[in-house]
Formats: sequence, C-alpha cells, structure tokens
Amino acid sequence: MTPAPAAAPGTSPAPPAPVVPAHGGRRGAGVGEVRLAPGFWGTLQETNARATLAHCLHWMERLGWVANFDAVAAGTTDRDRPGWQFSDSEVYKLLEAMAWELARSADPALEVTYAALVDRVAAAQDADGYLNTCYGHAGQAGRYTDLSSGHELYCVGHLLQAAVARVRTAGEDALVAVARRAADHVCREFGADANPGICGHPEIEVGLAELGRALDEPRYTEQARLFVERRGHGTLTPIPLLSPAYFQDDVPVRDADAWRGHAVRALYLAAAAVDVAVDTGDVELLGAVERQWERSVARRTYLTGGMGSRHQDEGFGDDWELPADRAYCETCAGIASAMVSWRLYLATGDVRYADLMERTYLNVVATSPAEDGRAFFYANPLHQRVAGQDVRTDAENPRAEGGARAPWFDVSCCPTNVARTLASWQAYLASVAGDELTLLQHAAAEVDVALEGGGRLAVRIATRYPDDGAVRVEVRDAPGREVTLRLRVPAWARGARFTDVDGTVRDAEPGWAVTRGVLRPGDTVLLELPLEPRFTWPDPRIDAVRGCVAVERGPLVLCAESVDLPAGVALDDVRVDPCAAPEADGDGAVVRARVLAPAADDDALPYAGAPAGAPGDADLRLALVPYHRWAERGPSTMRVFVPTA
Amino acid sequence: MTPAPAAAPGTSPAPPAPVVPAHGGRRGAGVGEVRLAPGFWGTLQETNARATLAHCLHWMERLGWVANFDAVAAGTTDRDRPGWQFSDSEVYKLLEAMAWELARSADPALEVTYAALVDRVAAAQDADGYLNTCYGHAGQAGRYTDLSSGHELYCVGHLLQAAVARVRTAGEDALVAVARRAADHVCREFGADANPGICGHPEIEVGLAELGRALDEPRYTEQARLFVERRGHGTLTPIPLLSPAYFQDDVPVRDADAWRGHAVRALYLAAAAVDVAVDTGDVELLGAVERQWERSVARRTYLTGGMGSRHQDEGFGDDWELPADRAYCETCAGIASAMVSWRLYLATGDVRYADLMERTYLNVVATSPAEDGRAFFYANPLHQRVAGQDVRTDAENPRAEGGARAPWFDVSCCPTNVARTLASWQAYLASVAGDELTLLQHAAAEVDVALEGGGRLAVRIATRYPDDGAVRVEVRDAPGREVTLRLRVPAWARGARFTDVDGTVRDAEPGWAVTRGVLRPGDTVLLELPLEPRFTWPDPRIDAVRGCVAVERGPLVLCAESVDLPAGVALDDVRVDPCAAPEADGDGAVVRARVLAPAADDDALPYAGAPAGAPGDADLRLALVPYHRWAERGPSTMRVFVPTA
Repeated sequence: MTPAPAAAPGTSPAPPAPVVPAHGGRRGAGVGEVRLAPGFWGTLQETNARATLAHCLHWMERLGWVANFDAVAAGTTDRDRPGWQFSDSEVYKLLEAMAWELARSADPALEVTYAALVDRVAAAQDADGYLNTCYGHAGQAGRYTDLSSGHELYCVGHLLQAAVARVRTAGEDALVAVARRAADHVCREFGADANPGICGHPEIEVGLAELGRALDEPRYTEQARLFVERRGHGTLTPIPLLSPAYFQDDVPVRDADAWRGHAVRALYLAAAAVDVAVDTGDVELLGAVERQWERSVARRTYLTGGMGSRHQDEGFGDDWELPADRAYCETCAGIASAMVSWRLYLATGDVRYADLMERTYLNVVATSPAEDGRAFFYANPLHQRVAGQDVRTDAENPRAEGGARAPWFDVSCCPTNVARTLASWQAYLASVAGDELTLLQHAAAEVDVALEGGGRLAVRIATRYPDDGAVRVEVRDAPGREVTLRLRVPAWARGARFTDVDGTVRDAEPGWAVTRGVLRPGDTVLLELPLEPRFTWPDPRIDAVRGCVAVERGPLVLCAESVDLPAGVALDDVRVDPCAAPEADGDGAVVRARVLAPAADDDALPYAGAPAGAPGDADLRLALVPYHRWAERGPSTMRVFVPTA
Repeated sequence: MTPAPAAAPGTSPAPPAPVVPAHGGRRGAGVGEVRLAPGFWGTLQETNARATLAHCLHWMERLGWVANFDAVAAGTTDRDRPGWQFSDSEVYKLLEAMAWELARSADPALEVTYAALVDRVAAAQDADGYLNTCYGHAGQAGRYTDLSSGHELYCVGHLLQAAVARVRTAGEDALVAVARRAADHVCREFGADANPGICGHPEIEVGLAELGRALDEPRYTEQARLFVERRGHGTLTPIPLLSPAYFQDDVPVRDADAWRGHAVRALYLAAAAVDVAVDTGDVELLGAVERQWERSVARRTYLTGGMGSRHQDEGFGDDWELPADRAYCETCAGIASAMVSWRLYLATGDVRYADLMERTYLNVVATSPAEDGRAFFYANPLHQRVAGQDVRTDAENPRAEGGARAPWFDVSCCPTNVARTLASWQAYLASVAGDELTLLQHAAAEVDVALEGGGRLAVRIATRYPDDGAVRVEVRDAPGREVTLRLRVPAWARGARFTDVDGTVRDAEPGWAVTRGVLRPGDTVLLELPLEPRFTWPDPRIDAVRGCVAVERGPLVLCAESVDLPAGVALDDVRVDPCAAPEADGDGAVVRARVLAPAADDDALPYAGAPAGAPGDADLRLALVPYHRWAERGPSTMRVFVPTA
C-alpha cells in the first residue's frame, strides 16, 4: 500500500487528518501527531475502540444491514430488504471509525475485521461504480428514482469519508478503490452536462470535497461545488408535509441568513460549503457560512451547543424557539456542528469556533454514549419530564424519546457517527500554522507536530480537565529557533491565569494565552481555568426557559436529576434561589432552592385568575451533576434550566 | 322517504340530532328545535352554508378526490390515485355537512348537489358493501392489508356519520342505503368470529355506534363495542418512529389515565367509548373516560381549549407540556374534544363539559375559518414568532405552519370538519331532560323543544354574546304546568347576575341559573355575565409560559398582534405590567406594558452570566383582540401569553 499524496497547506504534505484544506496557512493536527493519555477524552476513545466498534458491527449484522451488501453481490435482492434506505451509510461510518482506530492502535484483529467488511462492501459495487443495496437491483426501485428521499448520494458521501480516513492513514486499499470508482460514477452521472439533480440529504458534497483533496482529484472538488451551487433552487421533489427548507432547497447556500430545516442536513451542507469556498477561493461563500453560523449560534442554539429544536423535521426552529423539554439536539447534529466550526476555524483562525466545538463536544457528543460504549442518546433534551419511558435494552428503539440511552435505533445514525468522531477526536485538539502550535481542546495528551519551517514541536499536556482547571504543558522537543505555543482560553473563563515558561504569572483573557520564544525540553507553561460553578441566564427572548437559570462549571453544563432529590419532591416543583451563589460539590455543584407546595388541581384547566403563591420556606440543597453524565443512575427526570424562586 | 325510528331517551322519539344515546334521561336539542338568529354563531353558520360547502366541493373536484369514486365505478383505477389514502373521508364529511344544512335550509340547489355526489359515491361501492377508492381495486393494494395506516374503516366511519345526519333529518335515501351495506360489510369482516383487527385511526366506532342508534341496529353498536375493547393490546403493526400510543394501541381504553398520542384519534376513540358505555350500561368504561377527561383537561389542555402539544405526531404531550409557539391544537382535535364533552355532558349533566365546549368552540373551532369561509387554520398555536410564512392562497398548503389561513391542505381534514360542525352547531346549544330545558351555549336563537311530559317549551334568546354579556330569554310557548329553564353560568363568570321572571335579581354562581314554575309567553329572564377583561395566570408547572400572563374577556381568549404595535416594536420584546388591570377596549382590551430595550447580540450564544436588565420606562398601551380573529388583518406575529415586566 502506498500512502497517497495529500493536498497540503504551505509546502509540506499535511499529516493524516479528517480535514485537509487545499489552501490556507493553518492545518489541523494529524491523527498521529496527537496521542490522548488517560483522561476524559482518552477514556472515551479507548471505550470506543474496545466496545463501540464491535457493538455497532454486531447490531448491523444482527439486523441484516451488512448482509444487504451480500445480497447485491449474490444477485438475491428482493423487495424485503431490511433497514432503511440509508442503512449502507452506517456501515461506511463504521468503516471510517475503524480506519481511524487502526491508525491509532494498529490492532491486527481489527485490521482483519475491517478488511473482511471492505470485501463485502466491494463485492456489492456494480461494474460502473454504482454502489447501493437499496436501489438499482432485482426487486428494487431504479437508481436515482427518488433523489429527495433515496439517500443514494448521501451513502456514497459516507463511503468517500471512510476512504479519506483510509487513504490518508494507510494508503490505497480495496476501500479506496471502491470509493474512487463510486466518485467517478457520481461525477459521470451528475456532472455539469449530465443529471442536474442533488441529493435530499447533503453529505456527498463533503465526501467529494475531501476525497478530492486526499486523492488530488480536482474533478471531485468541482462536483462538490456543483452540488452546493445547485441547491436552494427548489428542484427537489417536495416530501409531503415538509417544506423545501427541510432539505435546504429553499434558498441557495450563499443567500441564506441562518440554518433552517433538518439540522444534520443543514450542517453537513454548510461544512461542504466551507470546503468548496476554501478550495476555490470563494470569499463570498465563506462569508455566507460565517454569517449563518453567527445568526444560528446566537438565536437557534442550546446552552449545550445542541442544535435542532423540533422533533417534527429534526430541524432548527425559528429564532428563539429553544424548548428545553422537546429540544431535539440530535447527537449527529452536534457532530455536524463541530464539523462546520472546525472548517471555519481552519479558514479564519477565530477562537469562537473552537469555543463552540468544546461546548458541543463536552455537552452533546460526550453525552450520547453510555459509560460502557454500548448505548446512546439520539436526542439530547435539556428537560426530561417523565423518567425513562419505553426504552428497551434488547431491541431497536424509536429514535428520539425516552430519557435513557438505547443500544440501537430504528434510524441508527448516531452510534456510528459517535464512533467515527471519537476515533479521530485527537485531530481536533490542536492546529499548526507556520511555527505556531495552538492547543484548542484541553485534554491529557502527547502532541508532536511537524512545523512548517521544519523540525518538530512536541509537548506533553497534563490535565484532569474538565474536572480540574489546571492545564500544564511541558515542552518535550523543539527546534532551536523561535516558535509560538498558544492555548485556548474559553470565552466563559473569567479570571484565568497563565504561567509562562519564565515563571511569570499573568491574567489570561478569553482568546489565546501565548508564549513565544526558543523553547527547550522541560520548559513548562500552566493555564489555570476557573472552575467555580456559575449561574447562566437565558436571553429574555427565549420563551421556553423564561424565569429559569442554569448552572455551568467550566466548560460543563450541569443539570439536576430527580435521583438526587429527597423522596416526595418533584423536580418540576423545585425553585432555585438566585441570590445564593452556587457552590462546588464533587464534579458538580449545589445550589440553594425551595420547593413549591404541591398544587391542588382545583380548576378544570391549569389556568387561574391569580398567580400561584410563592414557594414554601423549606430549604433544599439542590445537587447538580454534569449533563453529559445524566441518566447514568437509572430512570430520572432532569432539568438543565431550573425556575428561580 | 320514510324517516327512520330514532332511539330515544324516555318514551318519546328524540328529534334529529348528531348524538342520540340509547339510554339516559337527557337529550340534546334536535337540529330543527333550535334556529340560530343573526349573531356570532348564526353568522358563522350562514357563511358555512353560503361559502364553505361549495368551497370544499370545489377543492375536492379540483384535486380529483371526488373523481376517485368515478374511477372505481368505471373500473379505471390505477396506482396513480390522487390524494391521501383517507381522502374519501373528506367527501363523507362534506356530505354530512350538506345533510345537516339541508335540514336547516332545504335549499333545492343544495339538494341536487347532494344527490349527485351521493350517486357518485354509491356507484363506487362494491357488491359486498366494501367502499374505498384507495384499496381493493385494479392497481391498488388489497383490502385491509394495512390496518395501521390504511384508514379504510376510518373512512367508513365518516360515511356512517353522514348517513346518520341524513336518515335522522330526511329518512332513508341512497346514502343511507350505502352506509347500511358498508356497516353490514364491516360487521361481517370484523365481527367477533372474523378478522380481529382494528383501524389505526379510530372513527368507525363512533360511526357504527350512532348508526346503530339511528337505524335501531344493535349489531352496529356491538361492533363498535368490539372495536373499542380490542384496542390497546398492541395488535396494530407499529408505524416506523411512532409508538403504539400514537394510535392508542398501548393501553386499553378502560385502563388509561390520560389521553395520549395523536389527539384526534384519542378523542374520536373516547367519544365512541362514551357511546358504547352509555348504550351498554358500562359504568366502569364511562368512569374511565371521565377520569381521562379530568387529567387531560387539567394538565394537557391549552387556555383556548386546544389539545395537542406536538407537531411530530399531532399528539398530546406529557403533563404540563404546553408550548405556546409549537402548540398544535389542531382544529379537528378541538371538534373532537367537543364531541367527547358533549357525550359526557349528556351522560352526566356536569356543567364542566359544557364549559369546555364553549371555550373550545369560541377559541379553537371559530378561529379556524376565515371571515369569508374559504380559508382555514389547521393548527392553532398560541404564539406566532414569524409573520405569515409560506402560505399560498392558490394551492394546497402543508398542514400546520404559517400564521395565515389557507384555502386547502395536503391533509385537509379540518375544512370539512368545520363545515359539518357549523352546519349542526345549534344541536349543542341546548338539552332537554324531563320538563327541563337547559341553555348551554349562549347565542341569539329561537328554541322550541318537545318536553318529555308532552307539549313544547319555546323561547327566544336575544343576545350579542360574546360581545355583550346580557342574555335575555323570553318565553314564547309553554305547557300549562311547572317546567324548568336553566342557563349555564360559565366557570369564569364571577359576579354574574340573574333576573328571574318575577323581576327579582340575584347573584348567579358558576353552574346553573335556574327558574322553575308555570311559564307563560312573554315571561323573560335575564342572565348578565361580566365581560370585564381579566388576567389569567398559568399553572407554575407549565414551563412554556412561565412569567407570562394572558387576558381573557368573558369566554374569549384575547391575544396581542404585531399589527397593533407601534412601528419598530417587536411583540416578543413587550412586557405586560401586571399591576394595572386590563381595560375593556372595543371587543378586546388594553393593558399597560413596557418594551425591552433592543438586546445586543454580544455573545456568541444567547446565554449570559447575568440576567437581562429590566424593560425600559416607555409606556405602551398594548391592544388585545379576540384570538379567534387573529391573522385577519394580514401577516402578523401574535401572542396569547405575554411576559410580565
């Protein structure tokens, strides 16, 4: 296997990473340049490797989603194919996760599993490169007969992303060859002079753009650009009861003000638009996505970083429509949001994108998997009214309800998306620009990056973050010339301090804590982030949490769970006293609260001629725990925003 | 045509009405016993007759929903049938509306239209009584192959309700014959020893129960009972992504605590359960529905009487889940809620059921149709954030969004449901028990009812209610013995006064204002209901409107609309001063309010470390108008519950 040439910023080839823009002076760390140590993210990644990959494969074998490929290869397809029309994509996302994990661990058993799975996928590819187990074969609808809902190009997009992981970490192999044929097929079928269609679910764009970079195939990039530009002109056949905004076919990307419709679709499309904008130098398009990010983050994003306010279409709501109880905040939308922010960070260097990534990683992505890596949240609401409804541990579950993690879903996009994200998470920890190393996410890790001017800068990050605010960075190797080391100071961190290599201590304002000079092994800097719990207040235009307050601690959103309440107290009757500051307690916090007197249902309707009385005097010390760990202690009701007394 | 014998309470045959229980000492007024005079409801009914019936027929012809019957009759069906699988039901609901309207006006042109439509329906009936234009014919799926989603029995249910209207008002005709054959077919196919299935959408039950009463066919009642009892045992094939609660197949009717799942389904089923309980003397079943009513009204019902908190499944939410912006409150669910309450009122005589009917009629049902009777709301939210989105006046519309009434919907259940309800609305105005006449809904009307003990009691109701609180009732005819006349005093009416026939004035507490004696023509009573606007406060457990207050005036819920605001003021920035009582203004009210200073979007996210400042000093007189008239003056944002300062 010969590693393929990677498009690279500046002059040196970029190390393997999920996103490698063709232009720009800033690159992400390669997956091999960062090794996570035991700690918050290191543990999640190990669990992913040890448990989640096999868990996903087990379920997809059990449900016949892998066997669908065998049926195509054997010519035994019929109308009764198991799984949704997009189930192929789950296999591809798992392959992507395996590819990243193999680059990290080189586990020979996993290599065998990966190769066997690739063989089954490859055997299902048609001679002309078309690859899909739901369309185009005996007993099935014809190819591309339902672009609005068929997800054929969506599935190919995930195949291409898997191939990107593989070609960059191991070079050309059978999967990469399959992806190349599939991408060529798509370019032939949907090129400028061919079928002018687009896919109802964006994803092919981001896959083509990155495979184009990875294989140095500008045709793929151009096809991605075509798909992005074609969108927004109302050419997709509407899906009954959904508007064209559902799949972003209402307004061209460069003309839109905010994200709308299905959140994952909107965000995959935005990610691709950044890729296209960067590679083609389209400043207007890049600016459009930046503007959409600003508006959507300011008015359509949850405190957790979660996106998607509506169950109906898994979509964004209107501005300020952010219900806590019916928050959708799909795990995949959190992952997709980070995909967009990462690309915007690489393109602009603006710290706000890394801030949102941290918020989303810790409070959406890390919330999804159970501690054992074998159950997941699909939706991530900020308020659970009824404890643990209808979640089965031995079966596929409906996708979004319940207040308990489920092993698998009918639409099971989230588990494999979590798997591929955790398997490559270290790539988002740091970036390199010239002779500058920037540490974006704080996690115990060894970082060893190639600098643009030659030589390497290696550091060891020691921290128990987010449980502790001290982030100590020790230089292990450095070139003998001036370099720059930057650490992100999150926007929430008021009162942070930075100890420079010379021992001087200074205030660190949100943004970057920077040291610049000729660094030597043993040189150490220390960033101390304040982790006192703090109240956070919603904008008064958010109706759903008016009169409520949340508590955050460092980067973590906290929540109250009924399992921590005295017997007989209902969580929805608790009122926080906002005059007493929250106190640290373990890795969470405690706030003073009171409890409403149990209301009598006197009236037929829950509306009365006078406001309800004040809460009782009885003091309650209300415990709050990190949101990402909620529902780990059995069925519970839960609130992030709690009403004030 | 020979009018069919009607099952009757007591000994005398009941006059024609939509609901005529086989047992019980109380009956609703017959449609011919009440004639609405010009006024709120009289005008709505006239507009319905003059505009809505023809409007509905026009759209169903235009879209081919009527021609579907012709295709079955001609044997030309194929796979490309226009309309949803349940579109037949719209034709039946229109026939029901026409039948009630013919009983009222005897319009010869409408009689011709009705008969022609019946002929086209009748021609599509199969020899064995099966009647459906979507299943069972060339190019279509087989009969009863998809009970979960097929709606075949649902459609028959609406056919039977249409036949009930016809047989009771005009006697046996072609439509009644069709319905009889269809009902016989259902009893054969789904009887105790036959197919044990049920329909995913309840409706057949209420149709069979009433046709059984109308035709004195206990087999139909028994079949309705079977369907009700079979439900709740998880026998329906689940619909992907929806739980069995969606179609109430999770828990048997007699075991459920509250309504859940799809609101219209839940309520049609509950209505049928009351019918079955009353006719079979099943006290337990009746009690179960009463308990569900109590719990659901107390915790899952909007101030407007609207039901259904979720767009996703058009369903009830959890207790206290009552978002104002995403309130679904489908018009049909309002109609169905009144169907349940009416049956419970007849069974129990409890005034609370009539109270809820008034609230729902005035604030949900009357909200749906535009003034011209040619456009409708499908969903009835209590908060519109964005003015007039995407509503077309020349095409079918998606069903639930928009903030503007639409002429027709892709799923167009609401227009025909409004039509049949308005065409028979007078039947819900009054009830008769023994020698007692009860006036339940206050509207200008002539009432002339047969008393059980013989003779008639006739009164004229003069009122401009709900625009004025004076309801004057003058006796026009009465038997020469003691009778009772009761007027409902709504639960909201504190300080009502009642002037008896002898001129004495007394306080009228919520419940009933009663006069009893030998009445003579010219005798008059006067009920004076206080219509000062008043603040109404939500239960503190309703998160979505915490910190907000609504204004009601008499039976009307009021709302604020952006068209009434000064330029530059956004409705969502308005804060009501709860210390100043609302003042009457026209048919609405004015409250004192302030306006939030425009918020700067300083932070990336809409959350901050300190609560937002107090609203500015600038006083605003905020106008409030009846909710049922909102969106009549062009695109507007709207709020029922407004935050307090």
